[in-house]
Amino acid sequence: MSNSTDDLLPVGLSDRLPEEAAIATRVMRAALQAMDAHGYDRVRPPLIEFEKSMAERMDGVSPRRMFRFVDPGSLRTLALRSDMTVQVGRIAATSLAGAPRPLRLCYAGEVATITADQLDPSRQRLQIGAELIGADSAAAAAEMVELAIESLKAAGAIGISVDFTLPDLVDTLSAQTMPLDETQIEAVRRELDTKDAGGLKAAGGDAYLPLLYATGDFSDSIARLAELDAGGALASRIEGLKTIASRVGGSARVTLDPTERHGFEYQSWFGFTIYAQGVRGALGRGGTYTIGGSDEAATGFSLYVDRLVDALDSDSQRDTLFLPVGHDRAAAAALRANGWRTVAALSGEDDAGALGCTHVLSDEQPKPL
Amino acid sequence: MSNSTDDLLPVGLSDRLPEEAAIATRVMRAALQAMDAHGYDRVRPPLIEFEKSMAERMDGVSPRRMFRFVDPGSLRTLALRSDMTVQVGRIAATSLAGAPRPLRLCYAGEVATITADQLDPSRQRLQIGAELIGADSAAAAAEMVELAIESLKAAGAIGISVDFTLPDLVDTLSAQTMPLDETQIEAVRRELDTKDAGGLKAAGGDAYLPLLYATGDFSDSIARLAELDAGGALASRIEGLKTIASRVGGSARVTLDPTERHGFEYQSWFGFTIYAQGVRGALGRGGTYTIGGSDEAATGFSLYVDRLVDALDSDSQRDTLFLPVGHDRAAAAALRANGWRTVAALSGEDDAGALGCTHVLSDEQPKPL
Repeated sequence: MSNSTDDLLPVGLSDRLPEEAAIATRVMRAALQAMDAHGYDRVRPPLIEFEKSMAERMDGVSPRRMFRFVDPGSLRTLALRSDMTVQVGRIAATSLAGAPRPLRLCYAGEVATITADQLDPSRQRLQIGAELIGADSAAAAAEMVELAIESLKAAGAIGISVDFTLPDLVDTLSAQTMPLDETQIEAVRRELDTKDAGGLKAAGGDAYLPLLYATGDFSDSIARLAELDAGGALASRIEGLKTIASRVGGSARVTLDPTERHGFEYQSWFGFTIYAQGVRGALGRGGTYTIGGSDEAATGFSLYVDRLVDALDSDSQRDTLFLPVGHDRAAAAALRANGWRTVAALSGEDDAGALGCTHVLSDEQPKPL
Repeated sequence: MSNSTDDLLPVGLSDRLPEEAAIATRVMRAALQAMDAHGYDRVRPPLIEFEKSMAERMDGVSPRRMFRFVDPGSLRTLALRSDMTVQVGRIAATSLAGAPRPLRLCYAGEVATITADQLDPSRQRLQIGAELIGADSAAAAAEMVELAIESLKAAGAIGISVDFTLPDLVDTLSAQTMPLDETQIEAVRRELDTKDAGGLKAAGGDAYLPLLYATGDFSDSIARLAELDAGGALASRIEGLKTIASRVGGSARVTLDPTERHGFEYQSWFGFTIYAQGVRGALGRGGTYTIGGSDEAATGFSLYVDRLVDALDSDSQRDTLFLPVGHDRAAAAALRANGWRTVAALSGEDDAGALGCTHVLSDEQPKPL
């Protein structure tokens, strides 16, 4: 991104100049095309909604991060969208409540937040995602993980890896085979989050200690998790994870970190984070959840592709045809129809080379400059 | 647009559901493709900018219409973009100040305003446009009018007509052959705007009366305008209009309304409004201007395509292939690579017909349902 406009734009906001803008467009179209091919229909929700409506559907997750302002018309508080998932959930629960399930929707657009991520100063992100509404089975989850991988590959990502997690792991275990009291649950969750073995013991979570080691390469980790699950409380989850891993194992590296909760505050039994080689940080997250404001099960994912855009190379210079003053307009139009990009001289002063042209129209034919 | 979400979204904001969203995407891509073919590079400015920076570059035109809010970080006032032209002007004057001229840029994105147009309640619009920076000659204007027409045609518009105007007409005439004093100028402009012959006389603008009749079909009107221009103050403008009209006359109906100023507050010698059959109101406007904040001449246009999207028919139902449980995944992937859209069953309960499928995969081949 350009540095020269830093003083002209607020912190965390930037222009995509031509080269980067072309990559961003390419990435977005490729991902949307992959989603479309799998039967996902794009919806286009608005930039702005009622704050209350957005916040209610966010399950209390970070509505404070939204840009908010009063609508001079209704005097109600509006918010700039910070997450399109919430908007798609609203559409599924209202306008498309009567559409057959499972309902496949996808979206792409800019979202903005007041506070930037600690590791990422940007306050506007290009979010692309898909939601499978009315299903949260292992088959649904497998479809979504596969689609996330396929979308990113189509967009140009390489060396993709996917990390699985079980967001409601502690709830499930404590309710069945590894009981904890109310106060212990929070402490155990916290210590698992920080992967602090000592803290976990101190919190009365000795039984949970082995979970810290069921982490890493999927096949080893899932075996360790199964050993730990003596009472079978996780049996269906383990089966589900194996189903998903067997579907995606051929197209991405799969790892397991069953206690990872960061970014999965509203997911139910399954969550995943997706990474690509050469791109710092996660490219996206997804999982199973219940749509806020309705009780419908869903599975979805969001990709934040700005860092991928930053990492990708632009197309090599495109052939561009200079059209001199007085050129044959019909010939130029015919060449454009055949895929040529043209730049027409406005006066005799225009210089083909300076304007980035590679060819010049001469005798109705492109000649290399 | 959907009515069922009216209670869930603020007035003037709406969702584009799948059918309409697909049309909007098709329109946007077709227009951008036409611009790209003529050498226009897309830039992607952010959703939000400093209010001051936006307002200064808007030449005082309606910054009050922007959604504004305080940045909790910098405590400066930010604004949601209401016009991408201003942003492209900023980019041309800063990051791309050193790029060769004429500089061709294009853009597409959502813009939002607080107050809706009286005739149009929508507060968010899809703006698509192109700017030719460093040129405001008749050749530049002709290129832009042609490009606006070609972009709209590519997007599916039919029966296009273009209305030319001379935004600085009164300034030019009063400074040369038809003198008015300071107070008269404003009154004459106002009466010409309302096309009030009586008011024009009362304002001391008798000499300007014939301008009211140099309106309509281009060839007749330009002849009347030339007759009126005894002193030749408009000679270069009339030549320019003829040049532009001769370039675009074959692809659109051309009319002239030399005194039309509404929507051309910041244009210089030339302005145009573009219409299409079956679409209520103007689809876009353009003209020559000076970039706010720099003194560079430019020519550009903006298309607001939401009404075109509303007017266009959706694609007829697409072939969609149902993939039963246990289908051959490689066969399905091969069919997708060949352009098939697929919907995979998540369980035996999924119904191909209800999910909108036209074909089902059987023996690795699509069979019509």
